Amino acid sequence: MANQRHTSRHYEKELQELKEGLLYLGGLTERAIENALQALLGRDSELARKVIADDNAIDQLDSENEERCIRILALRQPAARDLRFIATAIKINGHLERIGDMAVNIAEKVLLLNEEPQLKPYIDIPRMGEIVQRMIRQSMDALVNENVELADQVRKDDEIVDELTEQVFRELLTFMIENPRTIKVALLIMQISKNLERIADHAEGIADMVIYMVTGKSVRHDSSTEPKGRMA
Amino acid sequence: MANQRHTSRHYEKELQELKEGLLYLGGLTERAIENALQALLGRDSELARKVIADDNAIDQLDSENEERCIRILALRQPAARDLRFIATAIKINGHLERIGDMAVNIAEKVLLLNEEPQLKPYIDIPRMGEIVQRMIRQSMDALVNENVELADQVRKDDEIVDELTEQVFRELLTFMIENPRTIKVALLIMQISKNLERIADHAEGIADMVIYMVTGKSVRHDSSTEPKGRMA
Repeated sequence: MANQRHTSRHYEKELQELKEGLLYLGGLTERAIENALQALLGRDSELARKVIADDNAIDQLDSENEERCIRILALRQPAARDLRFIATAIKINGHLERIGDMAVNIAEKVLLLNEEPQLKPYIDIPRMGEIVQRMIRQSMDALVNENVELADQVRKDDEIVDELTEQVFRELLTFMIENPRTIKVALLIMQISKNLERIADHAEGIADMVIYMVTGKSVRHDSSTEPKGRMA
Repeated sequence: MANQRHTSRHYEKELQELKEGLLYLGGLTERAIENALQALLGRDSELARKVIADDNAIDQLDSENEERCIRILALRQPAARDLRFIATAIKINGHLERIGDMAVNIAEKVLLLNEEPQLKPYIDIPRMGEIVQRMIRQSMDALVNENVELADQVRKDDEIVDELTEQVFRELLTFMIENPRTIKVALLIMQISKNLERIADHAEGIADMVIYMVTGKSVRHDSSTEPKGRMA
């Protein structure tokens, strides 16, 4: 009996470590996006290179979290509820790792942009950046507190990011048509906004998994593809 | 003992069904890409709409496969080797579902392209389409036959697709600069090539998981982000 309590305490500790590992990864990816956007706005190539270098730590933690999940599955035979948490954790971990990759993609484009003159002051992109950072934070909060309403909020924010992406595309399109010399720069900014949109999709994916974990109801696939008739 | 043999036969059957479910999903996604590209080349909006409608079946099968994985984990306490297969299966299933989404994205762009005059005959895009379809087929073959060499081949093909994407971008860029009236169409084609590149990334992700499953060696993260200095 004492032994069983001992085992159970260990098991609880492993689940807790997994949760903390996910939260920490969430923090790293949010920071990566923040830095990538700061590098964009400040035309800071050094910071952009830091985002690219920092991705190693994200990949490392992604692998560690995944190993934690597999180890728990292998050794603990988790019951239904924990099993659903671990299945959720595997997916959320994957989303976070991909968000880190998107931050790197943005940083790569910033390096290219910094070789060209600035097209115009950024207005929508920083707004998108703030929203996607909030989405990551709230989706992780929703996970930890099993808060379905917060997860729903993340899903709503995704629609705003989709609309902003389309708006950025259409505005840049007018620049490109008016002055072909802006095309190269405008394309790079389009790709940055597209990467932010994909980050929002991953945050929504996390929120969907939280809803699935808490309610058992699958809301995925509702919006995994792009809205109809869009340029972006 | 008879009972144990019975259980074990059931278990083998479940693993087999999971493998078949993955293969079937691989077939569906390959077909979706084929149809999306045929819709592009034939300017066939009806076929594009079929790709979009068909994605429901892909999402359905994705969910079924995932449930199979969870059920096996919950009921069977799989040993190390099977556990690694199921962890691999969860990830591969996710990659295939995303490939289906990319085919839908391509079909959406085809619908918009069909409202505009054709820019030029397609040369690189169909080639990219053939390569990514082969990559999916070979990555699934590599999974079933635990063939690391085939998985390595898929990883090499990904580099070719990356190069072709960059080539398509640069060619379209010259069209856009020469004639601003081509910008809208060129942007849509760029996005199609980008979606093909992302499909190739997912196929590479499948190949990476096969290598991990067979050798226990993680090759992920080597190329999950985009090559440096690229426009695309």
